Amino acid sequence: MTTQANSQDRLVIAIDAMGGDHGPAVTVAGAARALSIRDDLCFQLHGDGPRIEAELAKYPALKARATVRHTDQSIAMDEKPASAIRRRNTSLANAINAVKAGEARAVVSAGNTGALMALSKMILKMLTDDLERPAIGCSWPNPKGFATVLDVGANVTSDARQLIEFALMGAAFHKAIWGVDRPSIGLLNVGSEDMKGHDEVKEAHRLFKETVLGLNYYGFVEGTDLCEGTTDVVVTDGFTGNIALKTAEGAARFMQAMLKKGFMSSLPAMIGAFLAKGALKRTLRPLDPAESNGGPLLGLKGIVIKSHGGADARSFANAIKVGVSLAASGYERELAASLAQMTQSLALAPEAGQTDMKDLAVASGSKVI
Amino acid sequence: MTTQANSQDRLVIAIDAMGGDHGPAVTVAGAARALSIRDDLCFQLHGDGPRIEAELAKYPALKARATVRHTDQSIAMDEKPASAIRRRNTSLANAINAVKAGEARAVVSAGNTGALMALSKMILKMLTDDLERPAIGCSWPNPKGFATVLDVGANVTSDARQLIEFALMGAAFHKAIWGVDRPSIGLLNVGSEDMKGHDEVKEAHRLFKETVLGLNYYGFVEGTDLCEGTTDVVVTDGFTGNIALKTAEGAARFMQAMLKKGFMSSLPAMIGAFLAKGALKRTLRPLDPAESNGGPLLGLKGIVIKSHGGADARSFANAIKVGVSLAASGYERELAASLAQMTQSLALAPEAGQTDMKDLAVASGSKVI
Repeated sequence: MTTQANSQDRLVIAIDAMGGDHGPAVTVAGAARALSIRDDLCFQLHGDGPRIEAELAKYPALKARATVRHTDQSIAMDEKPASAIRRRNTSLANAINAVKAGEARAVVSAGNTGALMALSKMILKMLTDDLERPAIGCSWPNPKGFATVLDVGANVTSDARQLIEFALMGAAFHKAIWGVDRPSIGLLNVGSEDMKGHDEVKEAHRLFKETVLGLNYYGFVEGTDLCEGTTDVVVTDGFTGNIALKTAEGAARFMQAMLKKGFMSSLPAMIGAFLAKGALKRTLRPLDPAESNGGPLLGLKGIVIKSHGGADARSFANAIKVGVSLAASGYERELAASLAQMTQSLALAPEAGQTDMKDLAVASGSKVI
Repeated sequence: MTTQANSQDRLVIAIDAMGGDHGPAVTVAGAARALSIRDDLCFQLHGDGPRIEAELAKYPALKARATVRHTDQSIAMDEKPASAIRRRNTSLANAINAVKAGEARAVVSAGNTGALMALSKMILKMLTDDLERPAIGCSWPNPKGFATVLDVGANVTSDARQLIEFALMGAAFHKAIWGVDRPSIGLLNVGSEDMKGHDEVKEAHRLFKETVLGLNYYGFVEGTDLCEGTTDVVVTDGFTGNIALKTAEGAARFMQAMLKKGFMSSLPAMIGAFLAKGALKRTLRPLDPAESNGGPLLGLKGIVIKSHGGADARSFANAIKVGVSLAASGYERELAASLAQMTQSLALAPEAGQTDMKDLAVASGSKVI
């Protein structure tokens, strides 16, 4: 009851304290680091009471602004989603239920992604009936800051309509997190000409151009554009998005390993590394996955943030920050409105080829039924 | 006639001397650098005679082992393939025709990719009737050396059978270039479990496991595996492969820019850069696209190598090297044999689910028709 009263004048975030590779040692420490984001920020910490309390004892400021919700059940990192959704009172299910009950404004978990997806969908439901599954967004570093890329793994195939939904979700998210009013939207493809790509991207491209969606559509972008920051939001199916994200992470890790090898390969290089270390740490920081931790599950009735499983406290605090920004913004209301608008606009959209026919008919003075 | 005689005792490579951003200045210089690969290497240089001769004058050793095939027609870098295939006697078409006529063993071009694809397919034809389009391969750097990744852009969708064809092509190419006897094959996916991914990758995975293809199949690999060198060959559809390749290139460029920025940001960092420069240049070399230049168009009756359009002479020489290695190997013969074997094996392959039924039937003593 006290907590429900809290949620009206305070911003409460539910934390799955047992999720991730390190459990409460990281999730509680992360919450403590995140406290400074807002004065009215409070936490509900779900999981093993004694273990959470033991960590909380280290952070008196957090202890004063956190409630512990004990459960002895938690979901293993490798547990199948089908098993996870059958179990009651796990730390993850309880944290999501807190959002459902209006006790918390967002849930943050570093746990099992499949279980988080399945439980969030089951408990919170999708924002509209046509949405099939949440899309996973990510913040992708580039020289201008961060772009929002989605879907990075929730859906293995996506038709044109889903790609448009992703664009609306990505735009609403990007606006809420980065304050960009009309974020530009790129559609990931293998080239920039209209004729390039498979049927789904070509049809989505046509609908983006011919339908009134209220989006700032840029057009097709390519793999290189992801790291150049060509657009604020990049839309793609979950198969391609997941592979692009993991490829970029792999490329960055490979390059870092080669860099380290180079710096260790001779005495002058070692001295060089010592001299340049601080400067390089600064400029390479945006590429540290901890900086962009916090992938939203978009399209749900409620805010759900996925943290990397291996996150440390600083990184987990960044994921909490994403949840707080979304919770404090008009994101959910705006997204619901734009999805409703989309359904109307798509119903009115001309079918492929129809526009040209109409134009032709108008030009020749005849009528199109 | 002289040249045809040459092609019997010498290894002749046809060069589209006009292709690429720099034309003969790079293609002729690249051929000159490539001469040292083999003593019996000769070139046919197709394009603007006077311009080629002017460059040739700088390289007497090359001049002695090259013939110039003049034409005043060439294909623009942005010309549509449909236009390119209608034009006769372009430097590119003539170079491909030299392979068709048996005058040259391979063609190398830094020109327009779409035109190269269309003309190669039209002039040389596919290796077997079922092959629809060539696949484009690339050499992908990793800590162990290079992997062969395909398709990186020729086909926007690929069904299970095509993915298997890519595996056979990739294995034959990798063996010819790197001398690995039974290269391991990974299938790019969003996870490693059997249930992951879309229908095409799941069906290909099943066929790889249940069909006698003579391949060393490893299983699913993810985006991170591309830069870790988990397998020798990585197979994927041309949409995903193109985006993965360009994403990795973009990530490497972004990181290099941030590195440069860091080195320039303070006096100690600048001194550090000076001290470490040589060592870093050495360890970061594999990531230089020039090192892995030369993407084969696989599945054709003849060897066709695509160089980056912006290649310099060193980089173009690497593309020639790929053509020479393929031409000097049993690649074409082996690939034709393995494609024929594949057609037989797939005809005998159980349909999805059938294997389990058979096992069940055997276990219960009953018969399966």
